Amino acid sequence: MHLSFADFPLADAPAPDLHIAPLPDDGLAARVQHRLDHLTKPLGSLGRLETLALRLALIVGRETPRLHDPQLVVFAADHGLAAQGVSAYPSDVTWQMVDNFLAGGAAVSVLARQHGLSLTVADCGVCHDFGPGRPGGVDGTRYADLKLARGTADSSQGPAMTRGLAVQAMAQGAALVRRLPGNVLLLGEMGIGNTSAASLLMSRLTGQPLTDCVGRGTGLDDAGLARKLGVLTQVLQRHAGAVEPLDALAAFGGLEIATLAGAVLQAAAERRVVVVDGFITTAGVAVAAALAPAVLQRCVFAHASAESGHARWLAHLGAEPLLDLGLRLGEGSGAALAWPLLESACRVLAEMASFASAGVSTASA
Amino acid sequence: MHLSFADFPLADAPAPDLHIAPLPDDGLAARVQHRLDHLTKPLGSLGRLETLALRLALIVGRETPRLHDPQLVVFAADHGLAAQGVSAYPSDVTWQMVDNFLAGGAAVSVLARQHGLSLTVADCGVCHDFGPGRPGGVDGTRYADLKLARGTADSSQGPAMTRGLAVQAMAQGAALVRRLPGNVLLLGEMGIGNTSAASLLMSRLTGQPLTDCVGRGTGLDDAGLARKLGVLTQVLQRHAGAVEPLDALAAFGGLEIATLAGAVLQAAAERRVVVVDGFITTAGVAVAAALAPAVLQRCVFAHASAESGHARWLAHLGAEPLLDLGLRLGEGSGAALAWPLLESACRVLAEMASFASAGVSTASA
Repeated sequence: MHLSFADFPLADAPAPDLHIAPLPDDGLAARVQHRLDHLTKPLGSLGRLETLALRLALIVGRETPRLHDPQLVVFAADHGLAAQGVSAYPSDVTWQMVDNFLAGGAAVSVLARQHGLSLTVADCGVCHDFGPGRPGGVDGTRYADLKLARGTADSSQGPAMTRGLAVQAMAQGAALVRRLPGNVLLLGEMGIGNTSAASLLMSRLTGQPLTDCVGRGTGLDDAGLARKLGVLTQVLQRHAGAVEPLDALAAFGGLEIATLAGAVLQAAAERRVVVVDGFITTAGVAVAAALAPAVLQRCVFAHASAESGHARWLAHLGAEPLLDLGLRLGEGSGAALAWPLLESACRVLAEMASFASAGVSTASA
Repeated sequence: MHLSFADFPLADAPAPDLHIAPLPDDGLAARVQHRLDHLTKPLGSLGRLETLALRLALIVGRETPRLHDPQLVVFAADHGLAAQGVSAYPSDVTWQMVDNFLAGGAAVSVLARQHGLSLTVADCGVCHDFGPGRPGGVDGTRYADLKLARGTADSSQGPAMTRGLAVQAMAQGAALVRRLPGNVLLLGEMGIGNTSAASLLMSRLTGQPLTDCVGRGTGLDDAGLARKLGVLTQVLQRHAGAVEPLDALAAFGGLEIATLAGAVLQAAAERRVVVVDGFITTAGVAVAAALAPAVLQRCVFAHASAESGHARWLAHLGAEPLLDLGLRLGEGSGAALAWPLLESACRVLAEMASFASAGVSTASA
């Protein structure tokens, strides 16, 4: 399939459609459950894999769903707030890691290669000039130029971006998904400072106190964490009026979260399976879900991150993550690690024998 | 590779060697940790995947371990105690499921196929005549005739087997592993009634009260669970003198647990990675570890089963399972589901770039 990223960023991409209908209840759930209950295994004995199989069937709209051409997109951008020392790493790491993704050396590169996931790095606002006509990296990794600005403004001084820019970024994300094949979108992100933006969004969208939403990010020590919490408390207060989801998104950033939110809305509208990674991708999904709640029906939450606040946010969203491995890397690494479970769930539905077909006796109870 | 199972069961297989040395501490752990700490990711941010990578490196004895030709063996046998109504399913399900494994229709068949795991069904004592010269099933699934008896005796009436038979079964398991290629053994099992044997072994080996060791198995209701607990209480009392691991194994069975324990001892002696599945395979590993504690260093515990008691047993063994998906199927299904994580851990060690090689800035802290 031919993919053209040459004409990004798009000046006139339409804003994502927010009218996402709930998945239809046409008896499919009952049929899938009946199938699961007649496979050669004790009732419910595959636990969460069965719940997952049911969810995938409902998203795809088939009793035996097939997932094909899975797309892992790493949404990358820089954050003006990083100047306030909220991260253990300098902002340059954002573009350096984009280079690392394209060179195949990052964790998500390794995991995408292992599982045959197509990898796209979406530059949503990295503060670096990667040069014109960048063709992409090894293993077919693609670079998509969705850059609308060289990072956001410092949200401790004013809004990270205008509401118009946030909507434009969302439109880019939606347009990107429309160009990608397949029926699965796995979410990744990269952006020094973006746990700060995500924490601010969490506190504003859920109403939970900031102390429950802020963690160590890439590895702050106690002093760094205290400093981060102090900075974020001021930022949250400064933008006390940014209550609506789009206003909060514009106030706190970042460009990668906005682009990701738009991508999620488009994927949900197309009934693609959305595989959510950690804390920052959850922020993008939460923004999308605040605008169109049916988005959550299309999501599979890959893992509970070790970033403080993530488990609480997942509970707030009613999400049950598949893995709990103490990951706090981002990039989509947790989504990639969970991917084989989605494949297993589909294969179980499609390939396992039933008690009748295999001639196995059923329970005496 | 040519594998001959024609001469099983072996009348004169040597008993497993119990002298399993602790893994050598030759500086490898420090070298692997150094490598992990210099990959392009925040320190420790891959969480349990890093712990897993370190463990695999130590077992295989290489800074970048390679796992090859993974072997999933389903140890199958029947239990005389099943006559006391301790299972929701009739004993015939054991041989019917062996047929299902060979026909490729069971959950473990599907998962082994997905992940390229070689599948062997070891008939350690199934109460059924599968006929001579059975060539194996679809997808290269092998049938290994290790049958020493048509199931165990009813342990509510006397010992499930003699101590001599238990040792012979262990010898068969060790001999089987010696014939299998690769450096990974994934454990599976099938045997109606075997959660009862495992519960009895757990209580005897750990000293924990039987009520903390008994669960619903394949799906008993409350009345069935009460009946099972009553039967097992009597069995445990009847064999109060069976304290040593081999005596307990002989008293409670089963043949598949004994064969599995022998296989684990052999795999550990060869420094193969042993991937433990659920409650019953944990019983076999616990017997092996009671005889040779260094076995546990070679084990990766795939998941915490929903079977009551498993999480407690894992804690008793100091084991941290990778997955927690509410599985309670057995067959090796949890081991197969966890397998991609082992591959990921190895690939991260071997393929990720370092900060230096990728030109990425390190933390400012």
